[in-house]
Amino acid sequence: MPYGDPMNARVRSEERRAEIVRAALEVIAERGYRGASLAAVAERVGLTQQGLLHHFPTKEALLVAVLKERDQWDAVPDTQWRIDLLASLVEYNAMRPGIIQTFSALLGESVTDGHPARAYFTERYARVRESMAAVLRAEYGDRLPNGLTPERTAPLLVAVMDGLQYQWLLDPESVDMPGAFRDFLSLLGENPETPENPA
Amino acid sequence: MPYGDPMNARVRSEERRAEIVRAALEVIAERGYRGASLAAVAERVGLTQQGLLHHFPTKEALLVAVLKERDQWDAVPDTQWRIDLLASLVEYNAMRPGIIQTFSALLGESVTDGHPARAYFTERYARVRESMAAVLRAEYGDRLPNGLTPERTAPLLVAVMDGLQYQWLLDPESVDMPGAFRDFLSLLGENPETPENPA
Repeated sequence: MPYGDPMNARVRSEERRAEIVRAALEVIAERGYRGASLAAVAERVGLTQQGLLHHFPTKEALLVAVLKERDQWDAVPDTQWRIDLLASLVEYNAMRPGIIQTFSALLGESVTDGHPARAYFTERYARVRESMAAVLRAEYGDRLPNGLTPERTAPLLVAVMDGLQYQWLLDPESVDMPGAFRDFLSLLGENPETPENPA
Repeated sequence: MPYGDPMNARVRSEERRAEIVRAALEVIAERGYRGASLAAVAERVGLTQQGLLHHFPTKEALLVAVLKERDQWDAVPDTQWRIDLLASLVEYNAMRPGIIQTFSALLGESVTDGHPARAYFTERYARVRESMAAVLRAEYGDRLPNGLTPERTAPLLVAVMDGLQYQWLLDPESVDMPGAFRDFLSLLGENPETPENPA
């Protein structure tokens, strides 16, 4: 008698929530958060808007779930990040333009007045800069070969990753995002097989 | 008899257009382009929506005027750009957060599907990368001190400028945008008075 079985009901509800979050990621990639409507998300998963509200009572609640999803991808413990893993992360990102589009659109919107993702991004960047400084310190010690400290290099590392994503999303044919990121790492003193004449 | 004087009428109309564009820049900074309404822009300049439509028949027409405004600021001829001018530009940008917010929000949105500013940004970035490569070549010749070509360095230069803007807009107390940009220039081989212990 599966109907009414609370265990199955919970699993079904969690699956449904995950499906809604995936649909929300797509709708945000297409229209941004302010341009996204709960109706569009509901339609994509074959729910009525009322049915969607049962899982996420507000648009902001759905945004919170989307941002939590974001955090889970980054769930590599600080002590396990290494410079070469960052290069791999950028390679990986180049294979998933949809999701990069979602978060590039959200980051862009987050700087507008009173945006509900603003606090999230502000805290996230503070944390990521700290984490990147730790990665750089583990690799280079208190000074990079060029004389900058890890703390002063971290915002540049983060800025290059974000900035390249916009150029690449707008023009994937012209911008080799992973190659450009490896070039940046080579500026830091790394030289991860920088080819003389890249494609 | 100023009323009916076609010269004065044209001047008045141009002034009114400029005023509308300034209001649109503000509204986009606050809400993004998709979140902006012609009604909000009209209200800010004390016009009816009908009155606004007389000057800009569609929201997209107003966006085009906003983007043209953007282009005029950059109207430094390629041959006159120099690396140290870029550092000054970033200093200057740090004094006008409103306008940087407008264009960071627009860039973010531009990667969403079918956004009316997408073609503008795609072309703009191709042009800016080319122009930056020329600046780097004038400064360093065919190879930078670190071995990268001007063409491979240009996307990094542009990415750092954009990426730093987001971090700075979100957290101006924590991010010294002009200082970080000078740090980046020092990675390229420049060493524009990098202080040992910055604020």
